[in-house]
This record gives sequence, C-alpha cells and structure tokens, in this order.
Amino acid sequence: MISRQQLIEQIKRKKSFLCTGLDVNVDKIPEFLREYPDPIFEFNKRIIDATRDLCVAYKPNSAFYEAYGVKGIESLAKTWKYLPANCLSIIDAKRGDIGNTSDMYARAFFDEDTSGLSFDAITVAPYMGHDSVSSYLNYPGKWVILLALTSSAGSKDFQYLSTENGFLYESVIKKAVTWAGPDRLMFVVGATKGSEFANIRKYAPDNFLLVPGVGAQGGSLEDVCKYGMTKDCGLIVNASRSIIYASNGVDFAEAARAEALKIQQQMQAELEKAGIV
Amino acid sequence: MISRQQLIEQIKRKKSFLCTGLDVNVDKIPEFLREYPDPIFEFNKRIIDATRDLCVAYKPNSAFYEAYGVKGIESLAKTWKYLPANCLSIIDAKRGDIGNTSDMYARAFFDEDTSGLSFDAITVAPYMGHDSVSSYLNYPGKWVILLALTSSAGSKDFQYLSTENGFLYESVIKKAVTWAGPDRLMFVVGATKGSEFANIRKYAPDNFLLVPGVGAQGGSLEDVCKYGMTKDCGLIVNASRSIIYASNGVDFAEAARAEALKIQQQMQAELEKAGIV
Repeated sequence: MISRQQLIEQIKRKKSFLCTGLDVNVDKIPEFLREYPDPIFEFNKRIIDATRDLCVAYKPNSAFYEAYGVKGIESLAKTWKYLPANCLSIIDAKRGDIGNTSDMYARAFFDEDTSGLSFDAITVAPYMGHDSVSSYLNYPGKWVILLALTSSAGSKDFQYLSTENGFLYESVIKKAVTWAGPDRLMFVVGATKGSEFANIRKYAPDNFLLVPGVGAQGGSLEDVCKYGMTKDCGLIVNASRSIIYASNGVDFAEAARAEALKIQQQMQAELEKAGIV
Repeated sequence: MISRQQLIEQIKRKKSFLCTGLDVNVDKIPEFLREYPDPIFEFNKRIIDATRDLCVAYKPNSAFYEAYGVKGIESLAKTWKYLPANCLSIIDAKRGDIGNTSDMYARAFFDEDTSGLSFDAITVAPYMGHDSVSSYLNYPGKWVILLALTSSAGSKDFQYLSTENGFLYESVIKKAVTWAGPDRLMFVVGATKGSEFANIRKYAPDNFLLVPGVGAQGGSLEDVCKYGMTKDCGLIVNASRSIIYASNGVDFAEAARAEALKIQQQMQAELEKAGIV
C-alpha cells in the first residue's frame, strides 16, 4: 500500500513520475516467449525488472487479461504479486456499478483473500455516481482513480457536453472532490488535453492526475507538466505501448528500458525546472 | 445468438419478458451447496433449470464472478455454457474503454476461442463515447446494452445533469441511436424511473430496454409497462435477488421458480392488456 506521501517520496527519489502500462496482447510479444507456460507473465516479469528503478507505478489494464479467460486472470495475479512494493499498483478496470455490485468489484481487485488480487488503486467510471466509488473507499488506504477527461476521440461525445455545472468532465471533478480527499482520490486526464490541465487544477488543486496518452496516443509531456504539475508533482504519466512494444525481438526488455529511461530523463528535467528535485 | 425477431418470438411464446440476474454471492447461497467443488455453478444450474421456461434472458453480473478470482471465472464459463440457447445471454459488465482496450473486452466476452465465453449481449458504460461501443458492434449479431438511466441513488449525481442536449441520459440515448439500430442496441433504464419511460420512448421508440430494479430495488412493473412497452414489447425486465434468494434452504430452486412464476404471470397480464399475446 502506497500513501500519498510515499508516492511523493518515490517521485523525488527516482526523479520520475512514470507509470508503465502492462497492456499485453499475446499477438504482439516476442515469439520466443510463447514457448513458456505463461507467456504474458514472462513478458511482464522482464518488463518490470527492466524498468522498476525508472517507474513509480505499474498499471495492468484488466481487459488484456480478461481476454484470455482463466489463463489471463492467472497471469494477472502472478503479475500483481511480482510488482515492486515501492511502486503504486494500479488496476485499470474502469468499473462502475451500483453499491452491492461495486462491493464485489472491490473484492475482485482489493481483497486478496477472495480473489487473489490486492491492487493499491483502481480506475473507476463515474456515470453511475457515488455508488460506483464508495465501495472502494471502504478499503483503508486504497485509491480510487476516477475517469474525468479521457484521451481518445470518443471523449468528445459526452465529456465535453455543457452542463449546468460546466462541461460534464468538470461536473464530475467538482462532485467527486466532495467524496474523498486527495489522499484517496485521483483523476484520469488524457495527455492529449494539454491546456485543459490548468482548468482542471482549479477544481482539483492537490489531487494526483493519472495521465495516459503520452507516446502511442501523441500527447505532449511538456504541456502536461506546464499546466498540470503541482508543488508535489501531482502527476503520474502513463506510457504503455511505446515502452512495452519498443522492440518485439529478444532485446524487448532492453528496448523497453531505453524508452522508459528517455521518458524518465524528460520527467527529471521537468521536476528540476519546477524545483521539486 | 438471438436476433431481435427471435427475442420477440420467445416473449410471445413464453408470455414473459423476464430476465433472471445471476448475481451470486457465495455467502448467500444454501449451505449444502458449499460442499460441491463449484458451489456457484451448482447454484446457477439449479436456478436455470427451475426458471428456463419462464425467462427470455439470463444476466450474470461479472463482478460476482470476478470477486472469486480464477475460480469465479471458471464458474462464469460453466454457467454461460449451461444457459439455454433460446434465451438471450447477457453479461452485465458495464465496461467502457478506448478502442484498442474495448477490442480486448470484446474478446473477453464475445470470443469463446480466446476467453471461453461468448455471450449474446454486453452492458456498456457510455462515458468514453463511441470508442466504448464500436468494438462490440464489430461482432455480427451481438448486442450492446448501453447504460442510460440507472436505478440506484447515484444515478442523480450525473445522469440528470441538464446539458445542451437535455438531461445527460437523454444526450446519451440521442447520440447512441446514431451508432446502431434497434437490432443491435438496447438501453439500461432502471425500473424505479417509471414515468421517465415515456420520455425515453421519444428518442428510442423501437429499442429494447433492459430494466433492472423490479424486486429488491422497489420498481413497479405496472409503471414500466404503462410507459415503456411497445407493440413488440420492447422490454426485458430483470430480477436478481428477489428470485435467486427467494429461499436459502434446500428448496431454493422451487422458491426461485415460484417467484419467477409470479412475475411471469404479471408480465402475461401486461402482454395481454397490450394485445401482444
């Protein structure tokens, strides 16, 4: 379990706010790994070993494990157990349901005794409101990371609707900050939304933001930092495909490290510019 | 796979539009079942056998299986295989993610070859827009059931926000009907929202609506039918806890049947009143 303070310490120590997304498609991993009984876990193990000093968080996306049924869930459990204790473990699940069902999702991802998994944090979809969030907050010290403004084209369909309370994504942030403090609640904000970060900071000045969309999706790390960084950093920037598929040869782990290092160095420069390290 | 026409035929033949929700919490099932290697499947098997002539659909909620890790996913796969071919099989998963991730969720629930599961329909959360939906529509004949207006207290947090395009839930329906026709797209509308059904029918005149919230959550079947029924019925009403936990003794399956029969008879009266049967 990683507290807000421990997260900030890790960021300063590693001079990084990088999260590596473990979104592993078996069709895209190096051929030689497919000979192992659990190719996904073997892939993740090597990626984690190659990047653990450069990352403050890891984020498997649940879809990529569920796609392989029981075998996928076994790979996810082994991967979770292998994650370094000093990194925030995030399950990117984007769940959202009524209370008695959210209680079961909370068991699925936070209660090792029943499910074999106990991540530090879960991404949650806001559409069904407070019911969707409260079950997770009942687990002391665990984090909810609520979808606010996402990075893909579909974000325009509803998140930018003008509501009585600002854009929909602003309404979500304004309401959710009344449910939990910045020690338990983060928001997902896509990196492709550079200048929106300044606006988001008006409503969520101290919350960490989990930022996908740097790398394969084309967001700018510089813009994210310019508009979104706080005195505690306040950002966890995720890259998935650009790191884990940097090569699909036998050198994939070294290539992943090289890519993670490149991002970490850009992050270090931003942290130095802001006087955080 | 069940087409719109086949669903309508089943409704007429069984004089029912009941969906039984298989939301199975191991703590709530009869004691004697816990001696079996797979208590959840044994429970579901008996519930299905006791209700199959009274239901047109079954809907396991994924959370209740994920909560038990690998064992839960095995129970879900066995349950899916056991579902009657003439009933619509719905996985209540409320997923929603960007395109490349939704592709993996589509495999998880629609592609037996990779995941061991191939439901007819999946519930989807709209927050991330069109990306969240298109992956599922790529599977010919499969259904998307999009969350519109849900039945719990949290529905008030965002679904009733006034937007430039009506309430948020109205915006969702108006946009989504441009993505797919009523042969592939349904909406979730909570039974506790009786009079809203007339409003929803303005935007979705022909779409089937999946209606949770009758039974444990207190919605009125009469109101749902009064305001929401179409000439093809257009409704699938779900009951979960009121049926599956009607008794927790050795007679649980008979008690489930008695409860399902009670609802089916109310449904038959509504279908007769509307001249559908």
